[in-house]
Amino acid sequence: MDNFAHFVRVYIEDTDVGGIVYYANYFKFMERARTEYFRTLGYNKPALMSASQLVVRDVSLRYIKPAYLDDQLFVSGSIKKVSSFSLEMTQNISRDETVIAKARVRLACIDPLTKTLSKFPQTIFEELKSRINT
Amino acid sequence: MDNFAHFVRVYIEDTDVGGIVYYANYFKFMERARTEYFRTLGYNKPALMSASQLVVRDVSLRYIKPAYLDDQLFVSGSIKKVSSFSLEMTQNISRDETVIAKARVRLACIDPLTKTLSKFPQTIFEELKSRINT
Amino acid sequence: MDNFAHFVRVYIEDTDVGGIVYYANYFKFMERARTEYFRTLGYNKPALMSASQLVVRDVSLRYIKPAYLDDQLFVSGSIKKVSSFSLEMTQNISRDETVIAKARVRLACIDPLTKTLSKFPQTIFEELKSRINT
Amino acid sequence: MDNFAHFVRVYIEDTDVGGIVYYANYFKFMERARTEYFRTLGYNKPALMSASQLVVRDVSLRYIKPAYLDDQLFVSGSIKKVSSFSLEMTQNISRDETVIAKARVRLACIDPLTKTLSKFPQTIFEELKSRINT
Repeated sequence: MDNFAHFVRVYIEDTDVGGIVYYANYFKFMERARTEYFRTLGYNKPALMSASQLVVRDVSLRYIKPAYLDDQLFVSGSIKKVSSFSLEMTQNISRDETVIAKARVRLACIDPLTKTLSKFPQTIFEELKSRINT
Repeated sequence: MDNFAHFVRVYIEDTDVGGIVYYANYFKFMERARTEYFRTLGYNKPALMSASQLVVRDVSLRYIKPAYLDDQLFVSGSIKKVSSFSLEMTQNISRDETVIAKARVRLACIDPLTKTLSKFPQTIFEELKSRINT
Repeated sequence: MDNFAHFVRVYIEDTDVGGIVYYANYFKFMERARTEYFRTLGYNKPALMSASQLVVRDVSLRYIKPAYLDDQLFVSGSIKKVSSFSLEMTQNISRDETVIAKARVRLACIDPLTKTLSKFPQTIFEELKSRINT
Repeated sequence: MDNFAHFVRVYIEDTDVGGIVYYANYFKFMERARTEYFRTLGYNKPALMSASQLVVRDVSLRYIKPAYLDDQLFVSGSIKKVSSFSLEMTQNISRDETVIAKARVRLACIDPLTKTLSKFPQTIFEELKSRINT
């Protein structure tokens, strides 16, 4: 069972001259899904955002089948590891129940001003830990 | 005579499934050219940027011919009007001496914190006025 | 009354270092709304798409207030003029019932292979004409 | 010694509300560098492009330090493995001689029409093999 899932429609802006979704745009789709998930955990509150910012530290993505204009994609995610400063997730992109891309993402919590590592706010940390999905 | 010109190469990221440059990306190309121009006027200095920020208020663009992958485009610009708070320019995008898009842009100077109108720093204002191109 | 309306959520990908939505991205939002509208008119059928392609010929946009991360925007549109080869629309972007951007767009129907003007398929033409919104 | 290197200037379009380059945009920078490299190998000729298309199959990227507006980045690459159907490369992004991101990319050669695997044209294959950088 995944922690979250989000639908994404493919528009012309997402495609390229090869007739498929441009490879960098998968990372936009994955972040939209993560953002909607964090929103449900209370992470978009201005107070939190001013205290901490999530940035991607490592990402890997395997493209299995191309995505096309008008596709309705389903972007899921599962929390795999949580530490005081970082978070690891897997994310899949599917179309009609077929996985077309698989990713792994590691996010770090940083101070928005200094851009240095900063601990997750305690409530967020506990919340994330309780949702680890093995 | 234009005030400035900047070369832009079209990459896959700029194209869409129609085989041409996606229409919104022309605005990126125009901003790159404006940025390089403002840089020559000293506008990218951190001190200036913290005091004022340029935002687009009005833009219009006519697409004359499509642009394609690998095209080497030439983006020019001319200052047409300058006031205490705003700046008007025309910009052309050309390929092989043929204009393929024509634009008009009005930029406003705002305070980066309050996002409200703010006068141009005096030196920038004088500089811009001296370059009006009729 | 507008012909159509579409909700758009602002994600990090849409923002820039100024803390607001990057000015070129409004054109993506407007195209998403148009695409969803044309879909309701049957314009995304592969047979139609292979016979004709819509491209933007002229666009103008006035930025009235900035849009921010997490904003839920409402993108509407009204058909203003239809000819055998082109279509004119107005589009508004709103947040909480306040219009933050106003645009005018002229689209041309072209042959996808030759990129030259091509008449709208007759059924689409009749459909569009019947929806002119004055 | 890398096989190739390409300069990239960071513009507003590349940044996000966090004040840094948006994480997906690094993949655009890396593709620009690869494109310029393939161009030097003759890969952008229309005849070749109609016979074969390069698509990314796997990518991984480690973000070491953030990139900022106006940064002048240096994107390098080295060919690590070549097979009849695919190509593996490492790519680094640097600023002032400091590596700020490290990537690994696997590209596959596909038929542009069927989107299925297709052998590299023989001359390109030999060229790529002769440039393997260990």
